[in-house]
Amino acid sequence: MNLLEQTCREIFPQDNDARSQARARLEQLTMPHWALGDVMDLAVDLAGMSKSIEPAVEKKIIVTMAGDHGVVAEGVSKFPAEVTPQMVYNIASGGAGINALARQAGADVIVVDIGVNADFSDLSGSERFISRKIAPGTNNIAAGPAMSIANARKAVEAGIQLALDLAQSYDVFGTGEMGIGNTTPSSAIAAVVTGKPVRELTGRGTGLDDEQLGRKIAIIEKVLEINKPDPQNGLDILAKIGGYEIGGIAGLILGAAARRKPVVVDGFISTAGALIAFKLEPFVRDYIICSHRSVEPGHKYMQETLGCARPLLDLNFRLGEGTGAALAMNIVEAARRVLTDVATFAEAAVAQADK
Amino acid sequence: MNLLEQTCREIFPQDNDARSQARARLEQLTMPHWALGDVMDLAVDLAGMSKSIEPAVEKKIIVTMAGDHGVVAEGVSKFPAEVTPQMVYNIASGGAGINALARQAGADVIVVDIGVNADFSDLSGSERFISRKIAPGTNNIAAGPAMSIANARKAVEAGIQLALDLAQSYDVFGTGEMGIGNTTPSSAIAAVVTGKPVRELTGRGTGLDDEQLGRKIAIIEKVLEINKPDPQNGLDILAKIGGYEIGGIAGLILGAAARRKPVVVDGFISTAGALIAFKLEPFVRDYIICSHRSVEPGHKYMQETLGCARPLLDLNFRLGEGTGAALAMNIVEAARRVLTDVATFAEAAVAQADK
Repeated sequence: MNLLEQTCREIFPQDNDARSQARARLEQLTMPHWALGDVMDLAVDLAGMSKSIEPAVEKKIIVTMAGDHGVVAEGVSKFPAEVTPQMVYNIASGGAGINALARQAGADVIVVDIGVNADFSDLSGSERFISRKIAPGTNNIAAGPAMSIANARKAVEAGIQLALDLAQSYDVFGTGEMGIGNTTPSSAIAAVVTGKPVRELTGRGTGLDDEQLGRKIAIIEKVLEINKPDPQNGLDILAKIGGYEIGGIAGLILGAAARRKPVVVDGFISTAGALIAFKLEPFVRDYIICSHRSVEPGHKYMQETLGCARPLLDLNFRLGEGTGAALAMNIVEAARRVLTDVATFAEAAVAQADK
Repeated sequence: MNLLEQTCREIFPQDNDARSQARARLEQLTMPHWALGDVMDLAVDLAGMSKSIEPAVEKKIIVTMAGDHGVVAEGVSKFPAEVTPQMVYNIASGGAGINALARQAGADVIVVDIGVNADFSDLSGSERFISRKIAPGTNNIAAGPAMSIANARKAVEAGIQLALDLAQSYDVFGTGEMGIGNTTPSSAIAAVVTGKPVRELTGRGTGLDDEQLGRKIAIIEKVLEINKPDPQNGLDILAKIGGYEIGGIAGLILGAAARRKPVVVDGFISTAGALIAFKLEPFVRDYIICSHRSVEPGHKYMQETLGCARPLLDLNFRLGEGTGAALAMNIVEAARRVLTDVATFAEAAVAQADK
C-alpha cells in the first residue's frame, strides 16, 4: 500500500470518551456555564484529537510550503514570480511576517521548497529551510493540467512524510504557504469543492483592481472549463488545477491527523489544501482548527465545508505564510490552559448558580 | 487640584509623528500592502500611544477590580453574592479563568478589593491581592444612588493611583472585574451613555432565563427612573448607578492613559468603566484597545461609543475577570513584533508589486 492510502487508514474521528471527560470538567470550572465560549469548544476538540484531557500543545511548528505557478503568465498577480524564491530566503533568514508572528507564539518555522522555480542550494545549511522539490512549479492551468497525477501524489506524500517526521518533536502543527499566483488555483479548488460560482469566491489576492479582478475570474472559469476536475477525487483536483504547495499542505494535514495532532490551518490557500485533504479522507476535519477568516470572499464557504462556521480570528489578514495560524496558536494554548489550570467549584469552594 | 483633575490634564491624543513613522515602515514591509490588517492598525496605535516606533509591550498586567452590589437583593443574578469574595480568593490563589489565560499571555494578575463585602485580612501576604477598599459594596441602585459622589471620586482616584504606581513596572495594562450583579449597573451605564433603550442593551449575565431577563430589564429601567444620572457627568453616573469596581476600572484607564500606556479593555463591565473614563476625559479613547466582543448585546454599542467598531476577538466570552483582555494581549505583542521584526522590501531585497 502507498503512503497516502496507508495514512488515510490511520485517521480516526475524535475520541468521544476524552471529549466527554473534558466537557465534564469544563462544566465544573469556577465560572458561569461555558463562559469562555469558543475556547471551551476548542478545549473539547483538543481532548478529542489527542485522546487526552491534558492535550499537549507546547511544541508548535509552522510549516510554510512554497511553490510556483505557471498561471502567473496570465497576469493573475500584482507581484512578479521571482518574489516566491525571494520570500523563501526572507523566511529562512527570519525576516518575514510569519517569522514575527511565530516568534510571538513561541512556534518554530520551516519553509519547504516543494515546487519553487529556483535553486536553493545555498540554503542547505539553514535550520529554517528544507527541500522536498518535486518540480520547479506547475504548468499553466489556464492551458492544461497543473501537474501529472504521479506528481500530485508525490506532493501529498511529501507533506505526509514531513508531518510524520515532525510529529516526533512537535505537538501542534500550523500550515502556511508562499507562492505568487496561488490564490488562482485556490479559488478554482474552492469552486470545485463548494460548488459555488467563481464570481462569488474570487477576491483581489495581493491587491488587484476591478479590471484585473474581472480578468482573474474569467481565467479561473477557463481553468475549470479546460481541466474539468472530478469534484469527488482529491488527487484529480490537485493534479488538474492545484499547486505543489497546496498538495504539500494537504499531505501535512493528513499526516498530522494520522498522529492525532491538531493542525491549525491558515488562510485561503491553506484552506484549499485542507479541502484536498478532506476529499482524500473526510475524517481529517476532526483535526483541523480554522485559525482565521481571510479577506478573500470564498474563504467562508470553504471553511463551512470543513465544518468550521466560526474561525478563531477575523482580523482582515490576507498574507498567508501561516501568519493567521501562528497567531491562533495562542488561543490553542489558552484552550489547553482552561482545561487544566482552572479550579472547579469543589476544588475552590465557590458556590454554584441556582438551577 | 485633585488627582482626578490633574490626571485628566495629563492625557493627550496619540502622537501623530510616531503614527506616521510606524505607518511608513509598515507600508514597506515584505508583504502585500497592509496584509496583516487589524494587527497593523493596532501597531500604528501602539506607536501613537507610546510616542515610539518600538513600543514597549513586554511587561503586562491584568488588574481585576472586585466589588459587591446592593442590587443583588432584587434577584438580578443567578449566583449568590458570596461568590464575589470566593472568587477573590480563587484569583488570589491562581485558580480562576483569568489566572489561566494570563499565564498563557505572560501577564501578571492582581485582584483588588475596592468594594467587596468581606474581610480579606488573611490575604494580606498574597502577591496577587491588594486592598483599596472604599466600602463593602454599593447600595441598592433600584432604591437610590449606589454611593456618594465623594466615594465615586475615591473609587476613580484609587484606580488612578494604582495605575500610576504600576506604570513604573508595566508596559501594558488589562482591565478585569469580579462582582456578582455587576451586569445590571453596567447595562444602566450603557443606556445612559449610548442613549439606547435598556431592552436592546441588556443580556442574560451569568445565565438568566426569559422571565428573569424581563425582570432584570424592568429593574434597570427603574434604576434609571429613580436615579436620573446626568449623561454628561461621569462621576454623577458612577455615583448614582455604578459600582466600586467600575469606578476603579475607570481610574485605571485614566492613569494608564496619563502615562501613555495601552489599556486592553475586557468585556461588558470593563467597557462600562471605560465609558465612565471617557465621560471624564474623552482623550482616553486613544489609549483603549477593545479586546473582544462580549455575548452581552449592549457591548457593541458601548464599543462604538469608544470608537471601536471591530474589537480584536469575538469568541463568545461572557466571563469577565479580564479574560478577554489577557487573550488579546497576545495580539498586542504580535502588533509590536510586526512593527519591529519584519524586514522591509529594501532590507530583504524582495521585489515590490506593480503600481
